[in-house]
Amino acid sequence: MTRRGEFALIRDLFAPLARVRPEALGLEDDAALLAVQGLGGLAVSADAIVAGVHFLPDDPPGSIAAKALRVNLSDMAAMGARPVGVLLTMALPAGLDDAWLESFARGLGEDLAAFEIALLGGDTVATPGPLTVSVTILGDVVPERALRRAGARVGDDLWVSGTLGDGTLGLRVARGGAMGLPWPLQEALRERYRRPVPRVALGQALVGVASAAMDISDGLCADAWHMARASGVGLRIEAPVLPVSEGAATLIADDPALFVEVLAGGDDYELLFTAPADQRDAVAAGAAACGTLVTRIGRVEAGEAAVVVVDAQGEPLALERTGWAHDA
Amino acid sequence: MTRRGEFALIRDLFAPLARVRPEALGLEDDAALLAVQGLGGLAVSADAIVAGVHFLPDDPPGSIAAKALRVNLSDMAAMGARPVGVLLTMALPAGLDDAWLESFARGLGEDLAAFEIALLGGDTVATPGPLTVSVTILGDVVPERALRRAGARVGDDLWVSGTLGDGTLGLRVARGGAMGLPWPLQEALRERYRRPVPRVALGQALVGVASAAMDISDGLCADAWHMARASGVGLRIEAPVLPVSEGAATLIADDPALFVEVLAGGDDYELLFTAPADQRDAVAAGAAACGTLVTRIGRVEAGEAAVVVVDAQGEPLALERTGWAHDA
Repeated sequence: MTRRGEFALIRDLFAPLARVRPEALGLEDDAALLAVQGLGGLAVSADAIVAGVHFLPDDPPGSIAAKALRVNLSDMAAMGARPVGVLLTMALPAGLDDAWLESFARGLGEDLAAFEIALLGGDTVATPGPLTVSVTILGDVVPERALRRAGARVGDDLWVSGTLGDGTLGLRVARGGAMGLPWPLQEALRERYRRPVPRVALGQALVGVASAAMDISDGLCADAWHMARASGVGLRIEAPVLPVSEGAATLIADDPALFVEVLAGGDDYELLFTAPADQRDAVAAGAAACGTLVTRIGRVEAGEAAVVVVDAQGEPLALERTGWAHDA
Repeated sequence: MTRRGEFALIRDLFAPLARVRPEALGLEDDAALLAVQGLGGLAVSADAIVAGVHFLPDDPPGSIAAKALRVNLSDMAAMGARPVGVLLTMALPAGLDDAWLESFARGLGEDLAAFEIALLGGDTVATPGPLTVSVTILGDVVPERALRRAGARVGDDLWVSGTLGDGTLGLRVARGGAMGLPWPLQEALRERYRRPVPRVALGQALVGVASAAMDISDGLCADAWHMARASGVGLRIEAPVLPVSEGAATLIADDPALFVEVLAGGDDYELLFTAPADQRDAVAAGAAACGTLVTRIGRVEAGEAAVVVVDAQGEPLALERTGWAHDA
């Protein structure tokens, strides 16, 4: 196995990704310099992923890079921010060779280009443990217009982007639990797990339209609870209208118990947001302009902070496992 | 062993550290929002540390927090930036209990307060591997005035802050290699390893005075080589004038071979910088105002990018191990 030293690793693999943005200083100085213009404020966020916890150790290196990036892009989407660049720290186990690192860097470069953001800096360190990738993301935002969790108002509609449950079901497929699903649907679910699609354009389109927003990383019910608590409202979710992909629908038809993944499965990285009822056309227009599906899944109600999921008859579902972790 | 869930961990231990800065949104939203004012630009940098690699697993939790913060503060010092805040991601092994985490958070809070910076966000994830702490730091800077590695000019003086070799020698002491040193000197060296002192005030004082700067993390010779290469100059270092602490001097008197740690030992986090000769008074005045020792250790020479260390007679030292990793 050959493996570059850190200096050569940065020079050969990562510095080229930084050259598109002169402010990264070619990753040669102690920090990147950003001239601050844009929207008058910055949104900053950080998320880490660990092999065996957030991705499978034998996932393609490029998709690991993409996932590390995209879970952070999703945080920018949730704030309505325009992503600008990322810093990347990697704790590398000895078993990863040059070919792996080159593949990782290639995938990273492709995703940076696709989302039009820059690599601004970072660090690579050795670890006796599993591969750990930590990303910090910066985005332009007008601070007082950013989307927040606390803005949901009684009477607002509750919306979600895309489809739910695919992240967790895709993990099952990636682990070999194909469950008789046709190959194209397996592949689609697996890709949703490996390469979630951050709703960056939709997030920006919702600025001035949505009253509250966040991304769904821990599962619909758990994250809805965080929004309910931050806003001090109740959220009523109508189970029958929750959007599911063809793959998820096929699996649930076969095993209705899997519907719990739509309610509680993590790793979807869709946007959950609220908007006043008089903004329905604006939401639809914004989503159409981004080519992103949005679905009205419920409403904001008065009362204690709570999340209630109801069936077609309006009866609350008895949920044994919802992924809520109020005080865990 | 009791251990809080992530939600409670953030609520109980980390959110209180963020409350001093409203833009962190109490760590409740998907990102922190920074209103950008200040100096018109941002310096951003990230560094990770791993248990068993960059610190000892049984180091006090508070000093691990301090080290993670300070190696990043040192990058801000190297750019002449004013640190504003940090994002922290932690990969936590199962063996760390609440008491450990509380101690970590307390140490983090003390250091954040001491350096007047805010916790702006982050992430905690589980890992089957060693504790890994990754910090991204943001600082205010006037982009065109920031200190860079590439500014050294032929004829400039070469300077260093503080004393050299203490980081590596402190690690030896922390590992139990006390080598007959009196206790207070042992303690001083160990503290230098555990809690490096980032030269934040000096870095800002050098803006407009120094022509180039960087921090020494990989060892004097290795980092001087990076500056030489970035600036396209030779750096001549006079070994006899290199500043050493009382503890280091005592150890070297006992075993002269340890002098190599002054030249090549890592983890010092001192500033290496160049300045025109007509700025000597300004350098001295800036350093005095910060209460930081600075020493003129050589000069910038014409010729190929290179680092030469000379003895009292001006003869180049034959260095077997200098920590240089030109292309490793």
